[in-house]
Amino acid sequence: MKIARFSHDGAINYGIVDDDALVVLDGDPMYTGFNPTGERVPRENATLLAPVIPRSKVVAVGKNYHDHAHEMGGEAPEEPLLFLKPNTAVIGPNDRIVLPELSDQVEHEGELAVVIGAIARNVAAEDAAKVVFGYTAANDVTARDLQQKDAQWTRGKGFDTFCPLGPIVETEFSPTSGTIETRVNGDVRQHAPLSNMIHSVGAIIAYASAVFTLLPGDVILTGTPAGVGPLASGDVVEVEIEGLGILSNPVV
Amino acid sequence: MKIARFSHDGAINYGIVDDDALVVLDGDPMYTGFNPTGERVPRENATLLAPVIPRSKVVAVGKNYHDHAHEMGGEAPEEPLLFLKPNTAVIGPNDRIVLPELSDQVEHEGELAVVIGAIARNVAAEDAAKVVFGYTAANDVTARDLQQKDAQWTRGKGFDTFCPLGPIVETEFSPTSGTIETRVNGDVRQHAPLSNMIHSVGAIIAYASAVFTLLPGDVILTGTPAGVGPLASGDVVEVEIEGLGILSNPVV
Repeated sequence: MKIARFSHDGAINYGIVDDDALVVLDGDPMYTGFNPTGERVPRENATLLAPVIPRSKVVAVGKNYHDHAHEMGGEAPEEPLLFLKPNTAVIGPNDRIVLPELSDQVEHEGELAVVIGAIARNVAAEDAAKVVFGYTAANDVTARDLQQKDAQWTRGKGFDTFCPLGPIVETEFSPTSGTIETRVNGDVRQHAPLSNMIHSVGAIIAYASAVFTLLPGDVILTGTPAGVGPLASGDVVEVEIEGLGILSNPVV
Repeated sequence: MKIARFSHDGAINYGIVDDDALVVLDGDPMYTGFNPTGERVPRENATLLAPVIPRSKVVAVGKNYHDHAHEMGGEAPEEPLLFLKPNTAVIGPNDRIVLPELSDQVEHEGELAVVIGAIARNVAAEDAAKVVFGYTAANDVTARDLQQKDAQWTRGKGFDTFCPLGPIVETEFSPTSGTIETRVNGDVRQHAPLSNMIHSVGAIIAYASAVFTLLPGDVILTGTPAGVGPLASGDVVEVEIEGLGILSNPVV
């Protein structure tokens, strides 16, 4: 099932994507289940929003594809390399990525994102699917110069607009099949099978939930494959994951 | 004015500390202002809770006192060294700090915490006071072994219970006068004037708000002075800041 969050006629709702329409739901299905109101909104009348706004954490994993670790000049770490992005960085499909004045080198990182749907603490990898609400595409936008200058990645990864999510959350998705592709102005920059991930979604959830309680709405970015590169004002960057659609954002 | 968040008779309220009583407020004064309900709760009937739960970020500053930077084997960076703690780490006064099995070296870091009260983006240092709701004490509990092992501080700083806040928020407080002291089982471990801070509260707010939008309820930990050291099960750790009271937490 594909879940969208969208605005139409001044209201914001969740809905199920059904061909060219959105089946409006009563409340947030993560908390209230799937209760259609009976209303259907044509897709062209709806503006898609970030399908989830984390109330607590965006957890991200660094260097989770060997080829990307190599292009960054190192090896992939043995354990997942966790960092946090603030929820103030989250934007939705077609929202603008704003290049900050403080950086001269902002880069795209297309990633598969996991949306957590339950309170999760010390979850075993084999039970991880039980706490997953669904999957969406993400762009772990990074000010590479600040990431490399600062000891911590907080600034480089944390600017407002640096976490596009969307376009929808798919509740039935296998994170080990399919491919992820990132394009800038239509040119393919990153392309990899999701199966190239070093630490699986289950392993990441187990590792992270041994540190902090994951809450419904928390998002985990699972790392980016090789091919990261710069964004310039006027670019349009797309992250496409088979089965999840295309997350497209202009850069200004 | 000293603001507490507390439970009594199964309800959770905010209140103004007035001698031995809490003047109950209608709603969260950060959003609704100071509207007393008329009820007074004796202090001994109230259990103090974390005075604020950040909906977005706990921003923290590393190495913001020269003597602590030296004890960690380095120099203080020229710019504030920002990192994030998840809001799931927040606990209140007298709540237990839980030592995780994953670490053999959990340490206390007593700190002054700033509670943000307004949406803040690109705030100049001289205007920073306008976006501050108040101040409280914090303990930036740290798994030192994991902090030093991992490239990022996310695990070492992010465990559940690793961000005690309290006991109250003082809305009239000068962050440049007074002292901060951390005690373990009554022994003084850290003691410094707040004026020893390298980057002032205003400078930190300016620096952080140039990266991400600060939201009401966000908390900024302003760094710890020298004297950090290990905690063991059975310890009681206290952070006392003149004018803000004592934040006391048992360790288990």
